[in-house]
Amino acid sequence: MKPDDTDFITQPYSGNKRSAPLADRSPVSTALPVMSLEKRLVRKVLHVLGDPPIFITLPDGTTTYFTDKKPELGMIFRNRRALWRFIVNPKLSFGEEFGAGNLQIHGDLVEFIMTAYKHRPRLHEMGKVRRVVSRVLGQQRNNSLARTRNNIYHHYDVGNDFYKLWLDKDLVYTCAYYPEPDATLEQAQFAKLDYVCRKLRLQPGETVVEAGCGWGALALHMAKHYGVKVKAFNVSHQQIVEANARVKQLGLQDRVQFVEDDYRNITGSYDVFVSVGMLEHVGTACYRQLGEVIDRSLPEYGRGLVHSIGQVESEPMNPWLVKHIFPGGYTPTLREMMDVFEPRGLDILDVENLRLHYAQTLLHWLQRFDEHKDEICQMYDENFYRAWRLYLAGSRANFLTGSLDLFQITFSRPGNNQLPLTRAHLYSDDDITQDNKAWTRATS
Amino acid sequence: MKPDDTDFITQPYSGNKRSAPLADRSPVSTALPVMSLEKRLVRKVLHVLGDPPIFITLPDGTTTYFTDKKPELGMIFRNRRALWRFIVNPKLSFGEEFGAGNLQIHGDLVEFIMTAYKHRPRLHEMGKVRRVVSRVLGQQRNNSLARTRNNIYHHYDVGNDFYKLWLDKDLVYTCAYYPEPDATLEQAQFAKLDYVCRKLRLQPGETVVEAGCGWGALALHMAKHYGVKVKAFNVSHQQIVEANARVKQLGLQDRVQFVEDDYRNITGSYDVFVSVGMLEHVGTACYRQLGEVIDRSLPEYGRGLVHSIGQVESEPMNPWLVKHIFPGGYTPTLREMMDVFEPRGLDILDVENLRLHYAQTLLHWLQRFDEHKDEICQMYDENFYRAWRLYLAGSRANFLTGSLDLFQITFSRPGNNQLPLTRAHLYSDDDITQDNKAWTRATS
Repeated sequence: MKPDDTDFITQPYSGNKRSAPLADRSPVSTALPVMSLEKRLVRKVLHVLGDPPIFITLPDGTTTYFTDKKPELGMIFRNRRALWRFIVNPKLSFGEEFGAGNLQIHGDLVEFIMTAYKHRPRLHEMGKVRRVVSRVLGQQRNNSLARTRNNIYHHYDVGNDFYKLWLDKDLVYTCAYYPEPDATLEQAQFAKLDYVCRKLRLQPGETVVEAGCGWGALALHMAKHYGVKVKAFNVSHQQIVEANARVKQLGLQDRVQFVEDDYRNITGSYDVFVSVGMLEHVGTACYRQLGEVIDRSLPEYGRGLVHSIGQVESEPMNPWLVKHIFPGGYTPTLREMMDVFEPRGLDILDVENLRLHYAQTLLHWLQRFDEHKDEICQMYDENFYRAWRLYLAGSRANFLTGSLDLFQITFSRPGNNQLPLTRAHLYSDDDITQDNKAWTRATS
Repeated sequence: MKPDDTDFITQPYSGNKRSAPLADRSPVSTALPVMSLEKRLVRKVLHVLGDPPIFITLPDGTTTYFTDKKPELGMIFRNRRALWRFIVNPKLSFGEEFGAGNLQIHGDLVEFIMTAYKHRPRLHEMGKVRRVVSRVLGQQRNNSLARTRNNIYHHYDVGNDFYKLWLDKDLVYTCAYYPEPDATLEQAQFAKLDYVCRKLRLQPGETVVEAGCGWGALALHMAKHYGVKVKAFNVSHQQIVEANARVKQLGLQDRVQFVEDDYRNITGSYDVFVSVGMLEHVGTACYRQLGEVIDRSLPEYGRGLVHSIGQVESEPMNPWLVKHIFPGGYTPTLREMMDVFEPRGLDILDVENLRLHYAQTLLHWLQRFDEHKDEICQMYDENFYRAWRLYLAGSRANFLTGSLDLFQITFSRPGNNQLPLTRAHLYSDDDITQDNKAWTRATS
């Protein structure tokens, strides 16, 4: 993209001509030398970020952009502190200043982030030095037991009431599955739980261990609709309290046991291992440990499923997200995920990328989130609302542009020849209704 | 497994008691001191191989085994040279001596190999030293252009007439797909070609490049049934000659072009990249290069499929197979396969493990192979027949025990949001009949 200042900019972009004589400058430019520096620095930052077609409105009200026409999307800096913080550390400060209200977005937030992501240089297109720096920055992924507890509290113990405002009725805080694009969030979450059960070929009387069970929706679904016995682990106290209340309400105490503990403390043997939306919190350094837990939990022909956000290239998470929303979080590539399975000789049966399902899930979450803006601002404050909105919108943008993936990985020990020959059963009406009339129930 | 000699063995297994006084030995043992050493060494070899329950018949006709009862499966050594070669290098010499007729198998060959594979120690259960040795032995995977040509000649230029005896009518020498377990080989190969096309969502008028096209069955199928234009590469001269004859016969010259050249020499841009059964010959050191070829061949939202034999743990191929059947061959793990895609930022959409489909394909091949024993022995000789039979039986055994996998990997550039939301279309009768009534035609 050719740098091209316009009417809005009093001084044309001067590149590296630092020593240009004053006489070459326009009168306004000499009147605002500091502002000119800020513009040049913002330009530099945007260039490093891949020259996204956006405009910048500076604290003095002037607007600048580097495309032929004024773009429809823009960033409006409300004060110079926010502007300078963005210049110094754009990836961290964007979220912080947006949350604080010092930086506003002109246009749709999701579209803005999509535009930014589409233009940013991908890891494999970068020079070696930047790639190495980027990789080194991503090496903070060893989560000790104590640290894990803190990370999770940070995110999931914000308060059950908060999540009840914008999640589905069963509080499923992971990617839903849309058999049809126009399914509701409730239908799609029910369909997801059922899809996981079908992928696992659960049989009545079998035993399941779940690592990272959230508010217990999957465990309860498996027990209620598939007749299995489930032991489900989670380190979040608030979630376990809620899950225990629900298991009583449904009268499933004989089939479901919730345990407030770390996945590393799982003991016993189970026919099936399942983990939905936990791997993102595990940290790559602990993947082998997770593999060991799976290995010691499964009998000779045991099987399992891991469902996790992933990404195409091994890049560190956005620093704002790591600092404020997901401390200790990391979204692995499919290759990195193999560290869980390969060292223990577990056989991959099926990998499905549900990226667009997560984009749709996030659309539903965002809509509900916005509908409850007043309650959320009352519960916390407007900064909290803005930060979480940015997180949800940013996630949707990432899934839409393919910067993030959602992988469902089905596996078993090698040599399990009792599994179905094809995946047709996953999509057969017969199977869905035979199993538990899942979709019908959800839609009725 | 407790060592336990029996009636058949005149001297009980003496472990490491090398210095046991002669008086402790039975009279027969003293009469046959050399034979006793051989037995002990065979015992050692079997122990390293995981103590499979098999008997050994030595060249003098005596039989020995190390289980409570005489096993049903056994190895019969016809001469001492074969026995000693087995003791010194069991993995290489087993195939060579079996091929030469100096080593016979008692019982079903597939079952014998399955038993051996089920008992062998898996990589992750080995000590560190053995694991490192095993890994180092597997590091011979860089295939230069010239070497590739030789490898392929070795295997695929044995002669088209040979393959016509036992492959399906379209000469598809890769894993078939069995929508129903009782499908014939012809039906299953047709279904596989069609399944690949459905996974790729081929649209009429699109362009496809195929790397490693065999005798051209997939290229011709795509052009005939999906109306796409295909450029298909292969280094095997004999295969290209046959493929060119077929394209004329079908009158598809305007849509299919066969090129006798290496995949690294692919030029141009195509909507779709496909490669079925080539990655096994590429060598891990060239995976990044293959990724570059894919990258430069695909437009912004291009997509593709790679179909390859894989394995659960990174182990070198059997040395006999590498030396005599597949020089330069290597079956990668799913993690290793990611070296093709991740460095170029290609997004994995779907991975399916068709292990049991390959076991079934091999059953069909084996049956036809045996039906044509006389012709094959006449074409070549009995050693050739035995070696190839061992290769087919061994492969079936490996797929049945889960030592080998078959991965179909569907991918696209990230952010391609035109792809279907679910995989249901792959299994919908509507889709199959709409596309080309594939299964119906195959069965009619």
